[in-house]
This record gives sequence, structure tokens and C-alpha cells, in this order.
Amino acid sequence: MDYARFFSEAIDQLHAERRYRVFADLERIAGAFPRAICRADGKAREITVWCSNDYLGMGQHPDVIAAMHEAASRMGSGAGGTRNISGTNHPLVELEAELADLHGKDAALVFTSGFVSNEASISTIARLLPDCLVLSDELNHASMIEGVRRSGAEKKIFRHNDLAHLESLLAATGRERAKLIVFESVYSMDGDIAPIAEIADLAEKYNAMTYIDEVHAVGMYGARGGGITERDGLAHRMDVIEGTLAKAFGVIGGYIAGSAAIIDAVRSYAPGFIFTTALPPAIANAATASIRHLKNSTAERAAHQRQAQRTKDVLNTAGLPVMPSETHIVPLLVADPELCKMASDRLLEKHGIYIQPINYPTVPRGTERLRITPSPFHSDDLIDALKGALMETWEALGIPFQETGQAPAARSDRVIPLVVSKAGG
Amino acid sequence: MDYARFFSEAIDQLHAERRYRVFADLERIAGAFPRAICRADGKAREITVWCSNDYLGMGQHPDVIAAMHEAASRMGSGAGGTRNISGTNHPLVELEAELADLHGKDAALVFTSGFVSNEASISTIARLLPDCLVLSDELNHASMIEGVRRSGAEKKIFRHNDLAHLESLLAATGRERAKLIVFESVYSMDGDIAPIAEIADLAEKYNAMTYIDEVHAVGMYGARGGGITERDGLAHRMDVIEGTLAKAFGVIGGYIAGSAAIIDAVRSYAPGFIFTTALPPAIANAATASIRHLKNSTAERAAHQRQAQRTKDVLNTAGLPVMPSETHIVPLLVADPELCKMASDRLLEKHGIYIQPINYPTVPRGTERLRITPSPFHSDDLIDALKGALMETWEALGIPFQETGQAPAARSDRVIPLVVSKAGG
Ligand SMILES: Cc1ncc(COP(=O)(O)O)c(C=O)c1O
Ligand SMILES: Cc1ncc(COP(=O)(O)O)c(C=O)c1O
Repeated sequence: MDYARFFSEAIDQLHAERRYRVFADLERIAGAFPRAICRADGKAREITVWCSNDYLGMGQHPDVIAAMHEAASRMGSGAGGTRNISGTNHPLVELEAELADLHGKDAALVFTSGFVSNEASISTIARLLPDCLVLSDELNHASMIEGVRRSGAEKKIFRHNDLAHLESLLAATGRERAKLIVFESVYSMDGDIAPIAEIADLAEKYNAMTYIDEVHAVGMYGARGGGITERDGLAHRMDVIEGTLAKAFGVIGGYIAGSAAIIDAVRSYAPGFIFTTALPPAIANAATASIRHLKNSTAERAAHQRQAQRTKDVLNTAGLPVMPSETHIVPLLVADPELCKMASDRLLEKHGIYIQPINYPTVPRGTERLRITPSPFHSDDLIDALKGALMETWEALGIPFQETGQAPAARSDRVIPLVVSKAGG
Repeated sequence: MDYARFFSEAIDQLHAERRYRVFADLERIAGAFPRAICRADGKAREITVWCSNDYLGMGQHPDVIAAMHEAASRMGSGAGGTRNISGTNHPLVELEAELADLHGKDAALVFTSGFVSNEASISTIARLLPDCLVLSDELNHASMIEGVRRSGAEKKIFRHNDLAHLESLLAATGRERAKLIVFESVYSMDGDIAPIAEIADLAEKYNAMTYIDEVHAVGMYGARGGGITERDGLAHRMDVIEGTLAKAFGVIGGYIAGSAAIIDAVRSYAPGFIFTTALPPAIANAATASIRHLKNSTAERAAHQRQAQRTKDVLNTAGLPVMPSETHIVPLLVADPELCKMASDRLLEKHGIYIQPINYPTVPRGTERLRITPSPFHSDDLIDALKGALMETWEALGIPFQETGQAPAARSDRVIPLVVSKAGG
């Protein structure tokens, strides 16, 4: 038994499939977002990041950094324990109150990440419901898939945002059996939005519970940043709203908001919540500062939408293959993994622009893309520079421009390999 | 289908079993460790924490807090993306190099927590090995149990630290099949240490891989804080060493260290690593400062051992039922869940001393205890005050003192309830 061989072979396989990943070594420059120092081959140089999920640039907001400093100075660098064993710090208690208020729910519960919040909450909720059937959108994030698996509950996958398919599954199950519908509001790779009201209608009709992941919407949509459910007045129709503190809020951590009983049950039964050190007070304090700022200020959201729209318009006008998106996410179709990687490399080397290639298994084969995330800090000049760099790259590498009447590449049947294959990593 | 009922009933059950948990709302005072402000019923007062896992008080170390400030000011409050999508920040790259060096391994990989590092790494390693059998100590932490489950591999549980039992399982399996032995160095509830050298011998004899959790040892044992494996010169015999940044190092996050191939494989295949936002640069920078300090300074480790020993001696001399422990952990037997909770409440209310009760399912029924964790900052005076408070409490509540020749309560056969029942939360 030569153990080393199995690990080497697993790596070789990724090289062979051209999906071995090399991480860019970045040092973001607070105050100069989206600029960063990029290190490679012993050299450091300044570049522009066009694929950050710090969507609003809140990670460099002076109030947020000040809140982090203040709590670290006063309470130290860590929590010092699990939530139960001396780790429940006061800023975390305040953060949970802030989040409950953000979504108009009784209570909220904070986890070390959005990934853990999905995994721990979905698995615990589905396990606490006897003989629960989980109905899960086929494009749900890896963390939700892990949660469903971990629950041990039966699951049925419904076609992405397909209400007729979801209804047929619900109808076949009947009103009596426990059912949990698990889905996202904004899907992060395509930028499309779930038909939330209609899913809520179906949940009511067939008496199912609803769990929505608003990771790519909180902070960015709704009058106070409560996400698409706030924007569309649907928060009260969702049993559980899940979100992250690591994207628009610019820090780290995840959470759920819901009824007092659900929150207390997850708090009391989820291993991923119980058996781990709590988030540091400095992190909680920074997140609270960010949420509070975005509750009261709409400037970031307005600028975000404006710059995202302008980016789409400018790239579209230039004939670049912008995929349809209802949100701030701007996917640019390449449809070939090698070209996608080459385009990314060339943008970085030649133009000082960093956009991570998104290849299989993050997206279906044949839909490889550059996923562009404009922020309020991506100025018109930066957008124009981006367009120029993309044009040069598309031409140099012979990547197809828009065809008239072109439809976005169809979703392939994705083989789930060893690693769960969905989105955002 | 009345969903709310199931969640309420799950909570009622905990109340009925007297294991519903209320978290203490704490505000640690940097510079005055182990003092903290405790809030309850609208009142705030200063108390002494005797159950923190910030074992060395590094969470208040000026260098650590300064490192956090510095990186937050320069790079902002968050990483802004997953490791692959613009989240690999330079301090994280440095932290991984520091950790690889700490354990004398090729490489290291950082996760958002120790919990996630165990779950993601064990499950991925066991899945990459064809037909792997996992051999797991019966007292392994919940995060390791989750990792084993998630792998889908066959598992066999060996009796706690029982070499004969482990060998019989290995011998029955034979040399040809892939085998992963998963265990801890310091077990956090009893403070005992695994027979690491002997487990390494067995692993060699039967050609098994070894995975050791050093969460309660890193920073605290070994000349540079590399844990029990460093202290005993055994690091090179372990395939994977796992640790946390959240206990002795005083921050948050977890990691594994091992060969380049293993680390690269986990990096490339573990959903819990891939699909989540990276740790913020400020966190990574603070952790690196803490590790570096403890690599070069032995003062904290010496003072820690001295104060832990003094605590044991003082409490023992007073006839308090200190359970045997080979390490810095000082468990005090109560052997009744109600009394344990009452003792904890009385210590807090009457004496301003906070020690979380440790009840089932964290420990077996009948071994309920107060788990005391002295640090270098728990002075002789604080130890004497602790003794006085415990004596008063033991007498007032009629908790048994030491019997001569008393043996610690035997481990019960633990029923695994809905929640995984192991340790540290
Ligand atoms: C839809 C979705 N849910 C959850 C997560 C995980 O959130 P976090 O990065 O906070 O772990 C992500 C991405 O990281 C995501 O895209
Ligand atoms: C043995 C052991 N491993 C892992 C963990 C998890 O580490 P973390 O708190 O960093 O998630 C803990 C406790 O929290 C533990 O006791």
C-alpha cells in the first residue's frame, strides 16, 4: 500500500483535466479598492481586482476597520472558547440581534462561515423533522448540498428555478409529510434570481418549510440590505433566511435568521455550531458596523447597480459575450477551459487585471467563463480599461465575440466528481 | 404538519434532561486577562474566567493585537473571496509557511476553523484512498467524527487509547488494505495523552496512515510549541498533524500540516476548504504573530505548566475531587448534572468566578464536571481565591469531596443522541 501514490494521482488527474488550481497571492490595498498587490515568481506588482466578492468594498470602509480595531484593542484577538464554553462575546450577541432585525425575524444565529451555516442548519433542521423530504434546487451551492447529505434525509432535486418541476415533486409527496425547500435567491455564477414568491406560494399550498440562501444578495438588495426577500417584501414568507458576513458585508462568518424555536433548536443541536470556537469579538464588531452602515446608507447599493449595469452595457456594446444576468454579476462566456485560463493569465500579465477563470466543476463544461464583479469602486475609467483589455485578449486568443441571436450555452449534465461540484470556489 | 412543534419539542427535551444551555454573555478585558465583563439580566459586572481555551492568554498579547490592527489597516477587514477566487491573501500564505515549519512538514493548509479542518481533511483523505478503513479513537472530537462520517468510509472505533484493541483491529484488516488511524494527542475533557509512539509503531507494523489532532497541545508543548509530537520527537512519524489557531494561539482558524502531496490533494478536493471565503488577512497576521512569538518564547509554556500544577496541588490538598490529568487541564468531578449546573451558577453569582458546567453529552453521564483551565495569568492569589470559592460551593451544595482511594468515575456507555456527543462545546 503506497499511500503517497493516491494523492499524487489525484493531483495528476486535475492537471490532465486542466483544472488544477493555482491561487493568486494577493494583498488588497485598503483605501485603494479594487487595487491589490499581486505576488508571483518573487515579484510583486499592483493590479486591479475584478472578481472580488467584497461586492461593495465594505472591507475597506473606515467604520468597519475602526470597529475591528476597537474590539481587538479592548477584548483581544480571539473569542477564547466555543459559544458554550466562555466564547459568547458581547459583540456576537449584538451582531445576532442586528441580523434578526435586518431580516425581521425573531432571532439569528452566527456561524464561523456561510458554508458552515448552511451545512449545520440544513442538516439539523432536516434531521429534527421526522421523515423529512428535502427539495433542493439543482444549482444549489456546495455548502447546501453538504447540509442535505449530512442530514441523511431523503432528497429530491428540482430543475433550476423550475416551478412546474418543484410543484410536481411536492404534489407527489402530499401535504402530510415534512418537506423542506432549499434554494438560493441570487445564483452567483449566472446572476439569475429565484422565483421566490412563487416558491412561497407552492410551500404554502403543499405545507412545506422554506430555506433560502441570500449569500449573494444581503447588503446589496432591499431598502436596508436585507436581500432580495426584503426588496420583494417576501422575508416573512421564508422560514429561514441564510446569509454571509463575508461578501457584501466585507468580513467573515455566516448566519441564519428565523423563528425563536428554529434558531434555538439549531443552536442546541448542530455540531458545526456547538463544537467550534466562536467568532472573535473584533470580527463580530466589524460585521455589525458594516450591517448598520448598509442599513442606513443606500449610496453603495445605488453605485453598485449603476457600475454593474455600465459594465454590462460597455462590454455588450463592444460585442463581448456577456451572459444574461439579472443582477450585479457579469459573466463573460469563453466556453473553453484552456482559453478561459489563458485569457485570465493574459489579463493579469499584460493588463494588470485579475479575473479568476471559472471552469468545470464550478460551472458546467462548455460554459467556462470569466465572472466579473463590478463594485461601486470600479469607476467608469476602470470599466473602459477593462473593456480595452478584454478586447485585446479576445482578439489575441481568438475567443468568439457575440453572435447575433446567440443563446447562452445550455447547461450540461454535470457529472458530480469526488468533490461536490457546485459554485463559488 | 405543524413544523413549529418539532423544534419546540426538541428544545423541551433538553430542558427535561437538564441540558438546555444558556450562554454567558462575556466581554473579555484585554490587558486584564482572565478578567471579563459578564452581562445578565441587564446588569454587567466583572468576573474571573477559569474555563477559557485561550490557554496562554495570547489573545491579549500586544504583538498579536498589533498584527491584527496592522493588517486590517493595510488590507481591510475581510479576504473578499474564496481561496481560489481572489481570497488568497499574502498573510495567509505566510501563515501556512509558518505552520509547515512549526511541525517540520512540507506544507500546511489553513481552514476557517479547527472543526472544518478536521471534517474536511479526514473526509477527503479517507475518500481519496480506495476502500479505506478508518480506525478512530472512541473519544475523538465531534469534528473528527463528522469527518469520518462524511468520508463514507468504513470505520472501526477503538477503545480510548487502547493499543491492544487498536492492534487487534489492524491485524484483522491486514497490511494490504488502506487504513487511516485518527486520534488526538491531548484529550480535552480528561487531560490525558495518547500513546503516540506506540500508535506510530502499530501504524508502521500494519502500514496504516496516521492523523493526529493536536488542537489542545499546539503552542503549549514542545520547545517551539509544536505540540506533544514535537515534545516527544514524533512529528515525523505522523502523516498529518491537525491544529487550531483558536486556543493557545488565541485567534481563530484551523489547519493541517503534512506532505506536499497530501496537502495539495486536500486543497484541491475538500469542499469545506474550496467553497468558503478565506480567513481575513488580519486574522492570519495575528495568528502568525502568535505562533512566531511562541516559537521563540518558552516563558508562557513554563508559567502555564507551573500554574496548572499549582492549581491541581492546591485543590487536591483541600480535598476537592480533582480528576487525574497529565496536562494543563484540571477537571473537578461533580458527577451530577444538576449539582454541576448549580455549582457553576453559585460560583458565578456568589464568587464572580466563571466555570462552565460540563455535562452529558459532552462527557459521559456520571462524570459531570467543572473543567478548569489555568493560564499563566491565573496568579497564585487567583488560585487561592478559586480554592476558597470552590470549598464554599462544595459545602453549601453538599457535593462530595475526595474519598481516599477514590477512582474517577468509569466511562459510561454513551448513547449517541441526535447531536454528535463529543467534547469541547
Ligand atoms: C450560495 C453560497 N452560499 C454559501 C457560501 C459560503 O459562504 P462563506 O464564504 O461565508 O462560507 C457561498 C460562497 O462562498 C455561496 O456562493
Ligand atoms: C479536539 C478538538 N479538535 C477540534 C476542535 C475544533 O477546533 P476549533 O475550535 O478551532 O473549531 C476542538 C474544539 O473546539 C477540539 O476540542
